[in-house]
Amino acid sequence: MNTVLTIHSGRRGLHEFTDEVARLVAESAIEEGLCTLFVRHTSASLMIQENADPSARRDLERWLDRLVVRDDPLYTHCSEGPDDMPAHIKCALTPTSLAIPIMHARLVLGTWQGIFLWEHRDRAGPRQVVCHIG
Amino acid sequence: MNTVLTIHSGRRGLHEFTDEVARLVAESAIEEGLCTLFVRHTSASLMIQENADPSARRDLERWLDRLVVRDDPLYTHCSEGPDDMPAHIKCALTPTSLAIPIMHARLVLGTWQGIFLWEHRDRAGPRQVVCHIG
Amino acid sequence: MNTVLTIHSGRRGLHEFTDEVARLVAESAIEEGLCTLFVRHTSASLMIQENADPSARRDLERWLDRLVVRDDPLYTHCSEGPDDMPAHIKCALTPTSLAIPIMHARLVLGTWQGIFLWEHRDRAGPRQVVCHIG
Repeated sequence: MNTVLTIHSGRRGLHEFTDEVARLVAESAIEEGLCTLFVRHTSASLMIQENADPSARRDLERWLDRLVVRDDPLYTHCSEGPDDMPAHIKCALTPTSLAIPIMHARLVLGTWQGIFLWEHRDRAGPRQVVCHIG
Repeated sequence: MNTVLTIHSGRRGLHEFTDEVARLVAESAIEEGLCTLFVRHTSASLMIQENADPSARRDLERWLDRLVVRDDPLYTHCSEGPDDMPAHIKCALTPTSLAIPIMHARLVLGTWQGIFLWEHRDRAGPRQVVCHIG
Repeated sequence: MNTVLTIHSGRRGLHEFTDEVARLVAESAIEEGLCTLFVRHTSASLMIQENADPSARRDLERWLDRLVVRDDPLYTHCSEGPDDMPAHIKCALTPTSLAIPIMHARLVLGTWQGIFLWEHRDRAGPRQVVCHIG
């Protein structure tokens, strides 16, 4: 079963959508299986991270922003602005697809794990994540 | 259904093979499913990236080359040459496996997404990517 | 079929558990399929790497330690000690899930590929990896 989730992230950062995926798993009524997520963009990625303390996510974002700077003289691909090439590089370093097993009709996420869309553009329209449950 | 694709990359860089995967999906005649790719090497990886403007891929490669330098005094594992240890590190930072859902008998790739083998060695023989469609 | 593997890594580093996964594949008696692994933590990740020469893994660990330093003035999330935030960042840069096809009743791992749990905390209790075979 495939479902297209639309995530209205709007702006850069980690946007949690664990609940939306959990709802699809519940609706599928699958007891034991696999949930696979795929983001259909090259400037946003998927991430499983600490979902309790937001300071961990803020530090993570600031750390990656420092590693992948804007206005790097190396860049030649700048047609869409200073956040264009950094977004592609961040996507290369973080997942486009994720797979999470389903046991006892629930995602096997650990206690502190949430599912996030990581928007790498300053501003962005709705993002599509395809959720395959099987 | 598993198929072994042989990619004749020959030399370092991002080598697109979206068409080969799309052909396997078409041949499978599966309407709704999941296509999983796995590269059988520790010095080449898989990547979904911008497939329109080649400048984005060139910048990405140059950026990663600058992050993971050759001739780093840190390296002790150099038996296969100056591109040996950088290739292992680049593999650790980029995917060995990728999963792409299939809807309406097609991969759900976004408009600008292509599937690439990222060869990290200067020169390399044929590379094997296993494609599982289910 | 889902199985929870418990990995007693104890301390930081790459801990191979290829044999445990291979045993589950053998027990499943599946000829053609897909094995998906998922780590239920935000401070340990999964990695497929060179399993022959340990110097490659040592260099990889030292390289990542140098990229993601401790005592970085950027960090505000330090509640669990100096290895806390580096562990989250290392997890973001390395896989939480991996998928390996099964052919002829065996994982299609290449000659030099092993499956590792990468423990990013200095000391850690048992880690859970869920293995889905289908």
